[in-house]
Amino acid sequence: MKNRVTELFGIEHPIVQGGMVWNSGWRLAAAVSQAGGLGLIGAGSMYPEVLRQHIQKLRAATSKPFGVNVPLLYPDIEQLMRVIVEEGVPIVFSSAGSPKTWTRHLQQHGAKVAHVVANTTFARKCEEAGVDALVVEGFEAGGHNGSEETTTLNLVPLAHRATGLPLLAAGGIGTGEQMFAALALGADGVQVGSRFAASVESSAHPAFKEAVVKAGEDSTMLSLKKHVPVRLFKNAFFERVAEAESRGASREELAELLGRGRAKRGMFEGELDEGELEIGQVAALIDRVMPVAEIMAELLAGYERARQRMAAPLW
Amino acid sequence: MKNRVTELFGIEHPIVQGGMVWNSGWRLAAAVSQAGGLGLIGAGSMYPEVLRQHIQKLRAATSKPFGVNVPLLYPDIEQLMRVIVEEGVPIVFSSAGSPKTWTRHLQQHGAKVAHVVANTTFARKCEEAGVDALVVEGFEAGGHNGSEETTTLNLVPLAHRATGLPLLAAGGIGTGEQMFAALALGADGVQVGSRFAASVESSAHPAFKEAVVKAGEDSTMLSLKKHVPVRLFKNAFFERVAEAESRGASREELAELLGRGRAKRGMFEGELDEGELEIGQVAALIDRVMPVAEIMAELLAGYERARQRMAAPLW
Repeated sequence: MKNRVTELFGIEHPIVQGGMVWNSGWRLAAAVSQAGGLGLIGAGSMYPEVLRQHIQKLRAATSKPFGVNVPLLYPDIEQLMRVIVEEGVPIVFSSAGSPKTWTRHLQQHGAKVAHVVANTTFARKCEEAGVDALVVEGFEAGGHNGSEETTTLNLVPLAHRATGLPLLAAGGIGTGEQMFAALALGADGVQVGSRFAASVESSAHPAFKEAVVKAGEDSTMLSLKKHVPVRLFKNAFFERVAEAESRGASREELAELLGRGRAKRGMFEGELDEGELEIGQVAALIDRVMPVAEIMAELLAGYERARQRMAAPLW
Repeated sequence: MKNRVTELFGIEHPIVQGGMVWNSGWRLAAAVSQAGGLGLIGAGSMYPEVLRQHIQKLRAATSKPFGVNVPLLYPDIEQLMRVIVEEGVPIVFSSAGSPKTWTRHLQQHGAKVAHVVANTTFARKCEEAGVDALVVEGFEAGGHNGSEETTTLNLVPLAHRATGLPLLAAGGIGTGEQMFAALALGADGVQVGSRFAASVESSAHPAFKEAVVKAGEDSTMLSLKKHVPVRLFKNAFFERVAEAESRGASREELAELLGRGRAKRGMFEGELDEGELEIGQVAALIDRVMPVAEIMAELLAGYERARQRMAAPLW
């Protein structure tokens, strides 16, 4: 398959693995790249020198293209960017910040830059900032999210109308049929998070992966909207947040309730009750923890099944 | 195009016009049926004898199949059902209530029955109740909605796995490409609301139609969640609801704030500031008030465009 996304990143299939805190270290990213997709190290949960080790281990594991995901609100962002440039990372996915700040700098050092947005206003800002590709992330996505709550089914065609950039759809993409639907809506590729979070190679705690597999359609909810909107798995911590929100808790109270280090406790250390568990709504469609190579094969097979079924002229 | 939905309803294209309070009288339903889809009279905003007049006018305007949408929580439901049976309505779409109560009765009088749900638990209950088809309505849909907030992109494949019923996707379907995506996900057809609400033949007030056309991606929000979740256009009334919800207002306070007759004031009488304006997120993709026949032609053309673009084998 050749299109704008595969050509831009030099990959076989237009499938990017979302860079997720505590889930996507070098092992996951290497497996996805090795299988013909684009693997991303999630730098948001790494100290700069930890990131450097992950990049080096990933390079030892595969010669395929890979990338790093960087939330631009990262406190030590300068140091993180220095590691990325020093290590010659070929592709950077940035999020949670202005694309103007780092795009040119990274491109001058040879990197392709994609930026993650949840609305077309920021999509247009990305185009002005000169990014190479755009990830549009719908309401159903896990983790941090936009305040407009635009779903992938609406956001992809809106972004397709608004910009001419190569477009990756994120949020609600866990099967090949969903990938096919995203491309039909105007995306050139997809970014898949939750499905890879529940893979064998994900660095998430096994208990978290099992929770994802058991999740049903009522298991996640966009939460902490006054603080910073994030889609959470419904656990005891979530219920306390929901109770606080229901009685009108302030932004400050919510921030204090969240505290620090809760994502690590939940997703990395497997503390399911009190941890912050970030996962997409598509978890309801995930039935098994599988190796990355098998997930990739299933995505491609599902895409092909949908293509064949939908190819017949109907009128 | 022949499939389970077109055969069940005896229509040309698997496109059902959502039965919407204050928007879908006989004129809209007749135009959709005449154009080869399935038009529905929205009985939720009609007294039983008003519904009878609409059915008779619709029958005078077209000999094609048509239906009536009935929210089962309608206060005078027995009288409404009597009119439906007496007038020999061939197709009934029910919602907001148990499918067990009326399905058999309607079928014994010769009607096909579809029921609208927002999750797979109720989808399975519909199957037990013997309904002929299922509408699954995602989070992005206008008007009343489910509490799980499952988006169409996830809900359609979940429902497809959960039941064997003919499946209509609703919520976020305003273009032919979105229709194509819904069928790729496992739906047999679509139910289109907002796009037809903004049609020439819709009985909505022209000012409401103009508001839909001007809507952007930040113009609607699922609201009144403690009372009964409903996707609203963001106007002055919405802002008062949002303020009350932010400070933790009770279900009772929200119900009182909503009051009675607000949907009529907004959508039918054009009182844009203080009316209740129900519309889907897909309003952001609606650019023009068009005649139904042109909307139908655009939906079919967009579907065909997507089909041709997606037909090529990619691997």
